[in-house]
Amino acid sequence: MNGSETSYEILEARFGQIGALGEAARVLTWDRSVNMPRKGAAGRAEQLASLRRVVHEKTTDPAMADLLDAAAEEVSGDPWRAANLREMRRRWVHASAVDGDLIAAMAKADSACEMAWRDAREADDYETVKPCLQTVLDLVRRAGEARAEALGCSVYEALMDVYEPGARTERIDVLFDDLAGFLPGFLDRVLDLQAREPEPLPLEGPFGIEAQRSLGERLMVQLGFDFDAGRLDVSLHPFCSGVPGDIRVTTRYDTADFTQSVMAVLHETGHALYNAGLPPEWRRQPVGAARGMATHESQSLIVEMQACRSAEFIGFLAPLVRGAFGASGPAWSAGNLCRHYRRAARSLIRVDADEATYPAHVILRYRLERELVAGRLSLDDLPEAWGDGLDALLGIRPPDDASGCLQDIHWYSGTWGYFPTYALGALAAAQFFAAALSARPGIPDALSRGDFAPLTGWLGEAVHRKGSMPESTDELLREATGAPLGTGPFKRHLEKRYLSDR
Amino acid sequence: MNGSETSYEILEARFGQIGALGEAARVLTWDRSVNMPRKGAAGRAEQLASLRRVVHEKTTDPAMADLLDAAAEEVSGDPWRAANLREMRRRWVHASAVDGDLIAAMAKADSACEMAWRDAREADDYETVKPCLQTVLDLVRRAGEARAEALGCSVYEALMDVYEPGARTERIDVLFDDLAGFLPGFLDRVLDLQAREPEPLPLEGPFGIEAQRSLGERLMVQLGFDFDAGRLDVSLHPFCSGVPGDIRVTTRYDTADFTQSVMAVLHETGHALYNAGLPPEWRRQPVGAARGMATHESQSLIVEMQACRSAEFIGFLAPLVRGAFGASGPAWSAGNLCRHYRRAARSLIRVDADEATYPAHVILRYRLERELVAGRLSLDDLPEAWGDGLDALLGIRPPDDASGCLQDIHWYSGTWGYFPTYALGALAAAQFFAAALSARPGIPDALSRGDFAPLTGWLGEAVHRKGSMPESTDELLREATGAPLGTGPFKRHLEKRYLSDR
Repeated sequence: MNGSETSYEILEARFGQIGALGEAARVLTWDRSVNMPRKGAAGRAEQLASLRRVVHEKTTDPAMADLLDAAAEEVSGDPWRAANLREMRRRWVHASAVDGDLIAAMAKADSACEMAWRDAREADDYETVKPCLQTVLDLVRRAGEARAEALGCSVYEALMDVYEPGARTERIDVLFDDLAGFLPGFLDRVLDLQAREPEPLPLEGPFGIEAQRSLGERLMVQLGFDFDAGRLDVSLHPFCSGVPGDIRVTTRYDTADFTQSVMAVLHETGHALYNAGLPPEWRRQPVGAARGMATHESQSLIVEMQACRSAEFIGFLAPLVRGAFGASGPAWSAGNLCRHYRRAARSLIRVDADEATYPAHVILRYRLERELVAGRLSLDDLPEAWGDGLDALLGIRPPDDASGCLQDIHWYSGTWGYFPTYALGALAAAQFFAAALSARPGIPDALSRGDFAPLTGWLGEAVHRKGSMPESTDELLREATGAPLGTGPFKRHLEKRYLSDR
Repeated sequence: MNGSETSYEILEARFGQIGALGEAARVLTWDRSVNMPRKGAAGRAEQLASLRRVVHEKTTDPAMADLLDAAAEEVSGDPWRAANLREMRRRWVHASAVDGDLIAAMAKADSACEMAWRDAREADDYETVKPCLQTVLDLVRRAGEARAEALGCSVYEALMDVYEPGARTERIDVLFDDLAGFLPGFLDRVLDLQAREPEPLPLEGPFGIEAQRSLGERLMVQLGFDFDAGRLDVSLHPFCSGVPGDIRVTTRYDTADFTQSVMAVLHETGHALYNAGLPPEWRRQPVGAARGMATHESQSLIVEMQACRSAEFIGFLAPLVRGAFGASGPAWSAGNLCRHYRRAARSLIRVDADEATYPAHVILRYRLERELVAGRLSLDDLPEAWGDGLDALLGIRPPDDASGCLQDIHWYSGTWGYFPTYALGALAAAQFFAAALSARPGIPDALSRGDFAPLTGWLGEAVHRKGSMPESTDELLREATGAPLGTGPFKRHLEKRYLSDR
């Protein structure tokens, strides 16, 4: 520590190192999903736990409180530094609230429960995993309580705050209740219209994995993904990780159906563009990070749902698909591909759900996890509450727990308070996209030529390069679209795509 | 820190965490060589530097000195714990000797010089990289001086000590001078004999990469490599990394020549078996690590040179090779394959050198780097000294620096004092193998059936499971073979294979 450094400079150096260790952890988690052989799991868990412990130790170092206080004056008048200091403090508050022993206990319980869940889901056996899940929930609640006190919010809000800073149930209830009121009637109308149309013609495979991979890479390049600064690999579930200069996108391939993999690649590339476009001068600093998981999800959904399921883009995509698989005939027309990509259905599994029913799955989980955390719902009653909730939102009931409360990894792996960001992201995507269209009316035309530059250019300026400079998702949306998050653009988008544009 | 813990227990916990962070760094370096896109280099360097800084901070924590002293009594009577404490102290001495600023300066200089070297080697331009190399050497010397004081040895010995604990020039000089006296005359006789024989029949390709990969995997399984606990990938230079449960072997493929890749896979699998066989109950503890780089190299050379170039194993290999490439005819006989794998030649490039000339390349580098570190040779005079030295040892001179002092990455990337371990490893391999043959005379017969179990079983007990329990390579050899490292078994091996068994 150099005597001539300001407190803020010392903090920047410390958080820069913490940031680099966080990046290292990302490489390890990516590798775990993509490369790691089965027997590496225990060792990898130790490695990640040690990294997290170091990050926690460094974030909660006894000197931090004084440094953060002393730096306040130093950054006044410099909005980026001030925002960076605000985000540093946010991390410090979160980290300091929860002690190292609790974190270690959570890591252990999460990893044990996740393992048990894999078997339980396979065997449709909720009862076996329930005691594990209770342990996870108890620990999550303890961590939430500690954070809630520090943040001055409810326990569930404190859990959400990790993924979506400033998230409050009061705001989310308004948005989700509005959606929950809109969706059932909307879905009836869509399904009614859909029933009167011919079924989409089947797209018959098999579809070679090499051809799918090369189509995916082609589309990524089209989106502006730089393969000198990233990769496309295979994992059980598609995801995007990595850091600027080294973005890691994954997908999976099904030789019987290429449509999912193509959209997964596009979705994850939306995340990738956000990661790659974060402000480079703030790399590894808290203000240089993505604003939150709702914004992150919005960036993937803008690409996948708003841009790439548009008639314009599918007009560009269809000949590429035909070329990739040497296919021809009416099933391979843009119109038929559109019908495949806009098919709505009441379905049980969130990750397979379409754009029109997806928010219902999320609202269900949001309501349930809130009740579980508050202790108003017990894990014994979860399967029934799941069935009732899904019935109310979508009019269907799962026949078993495997397609009910066992389907998602989140709760079992200790991820509580994350679900709402999926639907908030869908709302934000529609709102950002509408603003982009107003600012750059040439976007649809460009998409019909496979040209994403007008869209990604706008997103780069309005979202990506802002990092965590705006204090919250609402603030970011206000700056970029003139209004905080609302349901209007999303509902208009759904109505246009699923009702009027048919 | 729990009040009821002993100092030794606290040390174990601390070194366990340091070990886990070291394992994390291995994943990052493996990924850098196998997966990382070009533009990820700068970020990865930061991540690794941060990890190394944390490891250094934790190893040199102010409490360490007292803990190490206090633990001494606690471990008396428990040889493994005592050995672990000894190895902890060794790491602490090394880490404490060099301050963090010097380490950071070295990391920066090494990485800059390595980049410059890549271009310089390509362009055969030693002059351009020389100033960079001077910076690296100056810093290496400073670090060596600091370590030498702590260890009570010469500066060059202190550099070697990082890779080969306890290595002393007095011992190495005896071994290398003996070899340097033996090799020229031996080589004359081998080349003379070889010249009177027919040339090996050419093995004509191309050899598909998939077929090579699958042959390599087949051989790894034969050696006992567990693909649920490891992988085979591709990198520019073959290497073995990873940790027990997750061993990472790499090779490279040349469609015009499969022989190199096959031997590279076997060589690296020798390293892999050592890594996988280290004492599991001491995982992540200093005593659970490999004894040193000479021993590590011996394990790869036992597999590659002693076992897999034996006539017995090549008799097993030949039909597999024919099957892999759909080949037939006299070129594909075991005898002809043997001739390919036992071809000696005076050659310029170390990594392409055969078993009989390889030690000469190492001895040259050992002598030169020692003089450079001592300041008795200047970098200006290195190219000429290189030519003179190679001429004396092998009777040839490089026509340019690219095939002379620019050929190896080691010095340019800050790796000084490593070279001797290659030749010490070759000596140790011969000595271990001779002892294994005495203890288990069925080994050659088993190899002719592709059965490595008798050999790897002996190695597992005599070497792998001992970790760093023996204090030095000599001590390990004494326990396993009854004598410290010598040149006899290696010379006898060469004479048998290259002269009498022809």
